[in-house]
Amino acid sequence: MKLTFLGTGTSIGVPAIGCNCEVCLSQDPKDKRLRSSAMLETDGGLRVLIDCGPDFRQQIMRYNRQGKTPFFDKIDAVLFTHIHYDHVGGTDDLRPFAWFGDVDIYAQKDVIDGLHQTMPYCFKEQLYPGVPHLKLHQIRAGRPFTVRRPYESTVEVFEGGATLQGIMRDKREQRIIPPALDELEILPIRVMHGNLPILGFRIGKFAYITDMKYMEDEDAQMLQGIETLVINALRFKKEHHSHQLVNDAIEFAHKVGARKTYFIHLTHDIGTHDWANSQLPDGFEFAFDGQVIEC
Amino acid sequence: MKLTFLGTGTSIGVPAIGCNCEVCLSQDPKDKRLRSSAMLETDGGLRVLIDCGPDFRQQIMRYNRQGKTPFFDKIDAVLFTHIHYDHVGGTDDLRPFAWFGDVDIYAQKDVIDGLHQTMPYCFKEQLYPGVPHLKLHQIRAGRPFTVRRPYESTVEVFEGGATLQGIMRDKREQRIIPPALDELEILPIRVMHGNLPILGFRIGKFAYITDMKYMEDEDAQMLQGIETLVINALRFKKEHHSHQLVNDAIEFAHKVGARKTYFIHLTHDIGTHDWANSQLPDGFEFAFDGQVIEC
Repeated sequence: MKLTFLGTGTSIGVPAIGCNCEVCLSQDPKDKRLRSSAMLETDGGLRVLIDCGPDFRQQIMRYNRQGKTPFFDKIDAVLFTHIHYDHVGGTDDLRPFAWFGDVDIYAQKDVIDGLHQTMPYCFKEQLYPGVPHLKLHQIRAGRPFTVRRPYESTVEVFEGGATLQGIMRDKREQRIIPPALDELEILPIRVMHGNLPILGFRIGKFAYITDMKYMEDEDAQMLQGIETLVINALRFKKEHHSHQLVNDAIEFAHKVGARKTYFIHLTHDIGTHDWANSQLPDGFEFAFDGQVIEC
Repeated sequence: MKLTFLGTGTSIGVPAIGCNCEVCLSQDPKDKRLRSSAMLETDGGLRVLIDCGPDFRQQIMRYNRQGKTPFFDKIDAVLFTHIHYDHVGGTDDLRPFAWFGDVDIYAQKDVIDGLHQTMPYCFKEQLYPGVPHLKLHQIRAGRPFTVRRPYESTVEVFEGGATLQGIMRDKREQRIIPPALDELEILPIRVMHGNLPILGFRIGKFAYITDMKYMEDEDAQMLQGIETLVINALRFKKEHHSHQLVNDAIEFAHKVGARKTYFIHLTHDIGTHDWANSQLPDGFEFAFDGQVIEC
């Protein structure tokens, strides 16, 4: 399984608008952190997006560009950790992915209610042309669910756009979506983001947790046996009411026994990426945008 | 007065996610169109943002980068044309601008109601730390209002971030905001976006209109005497239920007597920027992201 960090920044990203600190002015691409989000791909071909923040369009444009053309394939599941803008603000930009069928979104009830409130135009009986077709699945902490794509399907994708001379391509292309060769059992785990119960996700020996301030012991037990942990660590010092700091995250990773831990949801306060990484003990890394890890 | 096009693209931007047409693959920066938005600056120093779509963070990061540090100054008014995601989706990212005082937003009642629905966390009595402080002003088509900044004020801006070695800058800086030397009378004008009445804005001899399908004659009369018109023109052909095409926009510009017209809210269907521009009659241009015009 492979995880690509689409974004590793805190709610305002790095650089922060209006900030002229040395980190925000750094030209190192690793110091450019879009809002936290990640894409998980199984060996069998399933694709799971974790969170869809306001930078989603930028992120998906850069994703997987080894090929000739930008990435555009079925996303089998979108997992939402919580309803805050920096985690759901790009949901509207999922709409092209609805060419492959409804976009399956998995979230807690409060997030589902929130999406109905913030994107009412997506949940009417008669949808305005072009709005994203979203299928919301309610999930609960502690209750695993399975993402699969067992059958081949054929979809018709609209080939819009034009040649350099403006000759419009007004045709449709048939695309075959092969079945995925595996399936993914996902365990949602309760995470406390200040007073707000949100979700982290365990998938096999991997877990993804963001915006955590603390986790109750009984929930943390569900993480026993993981090898790779992605977890939020806002900055080294200066406590925050709803986010843990680097030391908290290190302690937590030790507690659940992770072998390798990557930090996300980072502020400019950590210093530059390379320096910040040099401060961490073995087995810990600050993630950076575009980084790909096996997990 | 100076207008900077922050974005000139249609609701999904150009390139379109998933599109591999020649326009979307073009490497010409003029063929990269973020969602439509513009910044107006008066000679006397007032700054007015028109729409704040999902690309606002990217747009403001690039804006006005001639100086050493990124732009960060008071925005005196944000004008919203309508509530659709591609025009208001970045409102949360206005939050750093609240360091200069509440962010003044001018919009129709349906937009104000919509913002209360989509951003409920911004309008509670007790605001969560860090949410944008927005002050909503209800405006109506045909009733002019004035934007001004008559007095000098001093604000305390938080100097966050860190040095390259992660030494945090935990201090505040006093910033003096000088008074603006002029004021701006803005006339909202009813524009029909399909069946939805939205707003365009006339400011002196300049007007900004987006997402128009048509305008009633009595409203169009309010545009008599303008010199510079910015207006939407989706593509050359293939009718759209709520957006006019290039020929409609040319006809409209002639009708209201604009001397110079710039097209925005463009799709990949128009072809590449340079080719598309070569197809227009004198006095008409497709705008591009980052273009600055006097108006």
